[in-house]
Amino acid sequence: MYAANPNTILITDTTLRDAHQSLIATRLRTEDMLPLARAMDTVGFFSVEAWGGATFDSSIRFLNEDPWDRLRELKAVLPNTPIQMLLRGQNLVGYRHYPDDVVERFVSAAAGNGVDIFRVFDALNDIRNMKKAMEEVKNNGSHLQGAISYTTSPVHSTESFIRLARDLYALDCDSICIKDMAGLITPSAARDLITGIKAEMDIKVCLHSHSTSGLASLSYQAAIEAGVDILDTAMSPFALGTSQPPTESVVASLAGTPRDTGIDLVALRKVRNLCVDLREKYGALIDPISERVDSDVLIYQLPGGMISNLISQLKEQDALDRHEELLAEVPRVREDLGYPPLVTPTSQIVGTQAVINVLLGERYKNVTTEVRDYVRGLYGMPPAPISEEIRRHIIGDETVVTVRPADLLEPIYEKMKQQAEEAGLIRKEEDVLTYILYPSIAPSFLKGERKPEVIPKPQPEPSGAADFPASMEVEVDGEIFAVRII
Amino acid sequence: MYAANPNTILITDTTLRDAHQSLIATRLRTEDMLPLARAMDTVGFFSVEAWGGATFDSSIRFLNEDPWDRLRELKAVLPNTPIQMLLRGQNLVGYRHYPDDVVERFVSAAAGNGVDIFRVFDALNDIRNMKKAMEEVKNNGSHLQGAISYTTSPVHSTESFIRLARDLYALDCDSICIKDMAGLITPSAARDLITGIKAEMDIKVCLHSHSTSGLASLSYQAAIEAGVDILDTAMSPFALGTSQPPTESVVASLAGTPRDTGIDLVALRKVRNLCVDLREKYGALIDPISERVDSDVLIYQLPGGMISNLISQLKEQDALDRHEELLAEVPRVREDLGYPPLVTPTSQIVGTQAVINVLLGERYKNVTTEVRDYVRGLYGMPPAPISEEIRRHIIGDETVVTVRPADLLEPIYEKMKQQAEEAGLIRKEEDVLTYILYPSIAPSFLKGERKPEVIPKPQPEPSGAADFPASMEVEVDGEIFAVRII
Ligand SMILES: [Co+2]
Ligand SMILES: [Co+2]
Repeated sequence: MYAANPNTILITDTTLRDAHQSLIATRLRTEDMLPLARAMDTVGFFSVEAWGGATFDSSIRFLNEDPWDRLRELKAVLPNTPIQMLLRGQNLVGYRHYPDDVVERFVSAAAGNGVDIFRVFDALNDIRNMKKAMEEVKNNGSHLQGAISYTTSPVHSTESFIRLARDLYALDCDSICIKDMAGLITPSAARDLITGIKAEMDIKVCLHSHSTSGLASLSYQAAIEAGVDILDTAMSPFALGTSQPPTESVVASLAGTPRDTGIDLVALRKVRNLCVDLREKYGALIDPISERVDSDVLIYQLPGGMISNLISQLKEQDALDRHEELLAEVPRVREDLGYPPLVTPTSQIVGTQAVINVLLGERYKNVTTEVRDYVRGLYGMPPAPISEEIRRHIIGDETVVTVRPADLLEPIYEKMKQQAEEAGLIRKEEDVLTYILYPSIAPSFLKGERKPEVIPKPQPEPSGAADFPASMEVEVDGEIFAVRII
Repeated sequence: MYAANPNTILITDTTLRDAHQSLIATRLRTEDMLPLARAMDTVGFFSVEAWGGATFDSSIRFLNEDPWDRLRELKAVLPNTPIQMLLRGQNLVGYRHYPDDVVERFVSAAAGNGVDIFRVFDALNDIRNMKKAMEEVKNNGSHLQGAISYTTSPVHSTESFIRLARDLYALDCDSICIKDMAGLITPSAARDLITGIKAEMDIKVCLHSHSTSGLASLSYQAAIEAGVDILDTAMSPFALGTSQPPTESVVASLAGTPRDTGIDLVALRKVRNLCVDLREKYGALIDPISERVDSDVLIYQLPGGMISNLISQLKEQDALDRHEELLAEVPRVREDLGYPPLVTPTSQIVGTQAVINVLLGERYKNVTTEVRDYVRGLYGMPPAPISEEIRRHIIGDETVVTVRPADLLEPIYEKMKQQAEEAGLIRKEEDVLTYILYPSIAPSFLKGERKPEVIPKPQPEPSGAADFPASMEVEVDGEIFAVRII
């Protein structure tokens, strides 16, 4: 819902997508989303991010829920608020590149079933991996939000990100998102980047960060002062930690100022109360670590969870003593690979290779298939060129792909559709997409053979000690009185 | 440790006082503080807040620890970093006014045993309740930080707080603290207040807030841009929620900017690792509610915990249905009492009277002793005058005290000292102060008859579900491959 006042900060609430993906492993059920979405619809959000990302995978894999049904049901209870989705460029809502015919069908099905705003990104910021999806968003008349995958490295700078913003702007984006998935952006970096984009381009800019390192709220405030238009926030029971800054706090911080969101805190309280109940229902899924500030992100610039993952890999190999060595090796591998932003799948690719290098005591003695494919150019163009030495060492004389990776993929939609129909899997056209995206889960899912995961029981909360004594002594003129504090 | 660069943001780390008071009920043991303080001493903090507030009460009441010994031991491991304490003006580290002779002795004993910086405040911002303590701080040659108890009400404004700052400045404060104990200050309020003080007074300004409402980090960033000099933060394992914003995040947010704190993140990591262990040790004391954003603070402006306390009072009376009525009554009682900042003890005074008013169905039919004393002027001067109607209703024709409340108190130090000596309680001069401040616990404590509370066992953490599938399917040309994610 666009606000009338152009100074207004617009709020995209992420509770229905990124927040529950970040904190409760994308496990929110549609039946729990609907009352929440209904309450959210009256609040006045610019949009609710409610689809895409890992929700598609999770709903069929763990919840036995049809993501397309969910989308339509959400649409029905959100007549006033645009539904936003996160689209991984040519990866759609999967983990690899799909051919263009699948991208075309997917975007048009998403738009047709209720997505109003598409946030499109690529992990390497390779715009060739985003272009097809972006065109299709425009063809469907939807709002196109182009996203910059934010990271820090010697080859990433305010200027390099502004260049990327220029490309997105030239491709007719309706808004641009600075997508800081690891929570790395500092207040001054946010200020410079937002100021730079706004100075040059007439376009709304959104800041999306995660509170992983504790920087996000500081950077949101700097962004507000720098003229950001849209902020991504999550309702407080699902905010902070690896999720976004709290919606209520950002709304309250602006109340009565020239950039007032226009959102009423009392209306928001109803939404919050629903979230409090859901937090209780799903609480056992929350790893307390994901709620804490991870200051290692600030030192090693590895996203939350990656360091602990690496450490458990070392533990399994009985090599915990090589811990410091590994922390030094990860940035070296990242450098060798041209400084990819560390986010799925690049964080796994870099991290695993670093572990192998440290354990074998020789760098790139063994190389994973993923690193080989990466060097072959199959993931797209790395932010910096890979040195000839590393390339040779890893793929020898093999040629590096320089075309758009998806140009190597043949159309598959019709063939897969026929295959799925013959298997008796298809009841609606969207089932073909489900089948193409998740070919090994989809058959059992589409046949109705899967069971939803059970929600783990919440643990009883510790009672906590009172931080104020229940009674105390008061002395008057040398006489002692006991007073009960109520 | 003053930094050489005047633009540097100075950091007061609160982990050893406010943070553990806010999150683990002030239960940190001296033996756990010492290694932490030793590590902190190398970091370059402006100060560590490590004494005062509720720590004095808690150490004798729950931990069987001598607060004076703790102070000396902390001093021994903090040769490079000033120790800061929170002093409740004429209340010292207790819950009522003490006569001037006790204030004099206490401040000089605190300074003599290691306190370098005294933050002095009064819950009603009645400077008459602060003056004696402030004079004594100066007499001891220590750093005097005068604090403004921040709140919001129709009689509190940027201008009214600047007036108070003027008074503190005139009383020769070395720095001024905006003490926002409920986490109410917004970015724009922080900006206006800091800009206003700095424009007029040549003095360092500190912002102290709590993350209770999720505003603090936003307001810290606004404060930085407005020229604040000192920020209060807590090490991340004891940060956020009802505690302060994280030290590491604030430090990282400024690294490389003109306001760089000069603090090294890697050095800070050692401190953090110690805190991670302590958080585990004391984890069972943390009420999960105190770690969450409490957006009710933003609507009702009641400090964290107060609403839930009120609700449990209603529950006990089987009157949960009067919940909304009570939420409306609290601000009315606060208004009747001249808008005191809601902080201990005023939050209890206002809250309990509101419950009584609602339950009896008639306002002020019964009145607590505390409200009566408050109206009599025994707590100091309310921010706004109490109407004659309310006054008459509550204390009838009794006169209201207009002198400084402590002027009504006779000196007691020598008399109490003699009393304690006769009881065989005194081994060092400071024991007299302990006896005067906590006359009913002190005897058993000083005789060595108290036992330290047992630290509750940490609960096993829920394992948390992985947020990324361990394996997935990849389809190439219609062929399906299973891939394990590493
Ligand atoms: Co995100
Ligand atoms: Co405090």
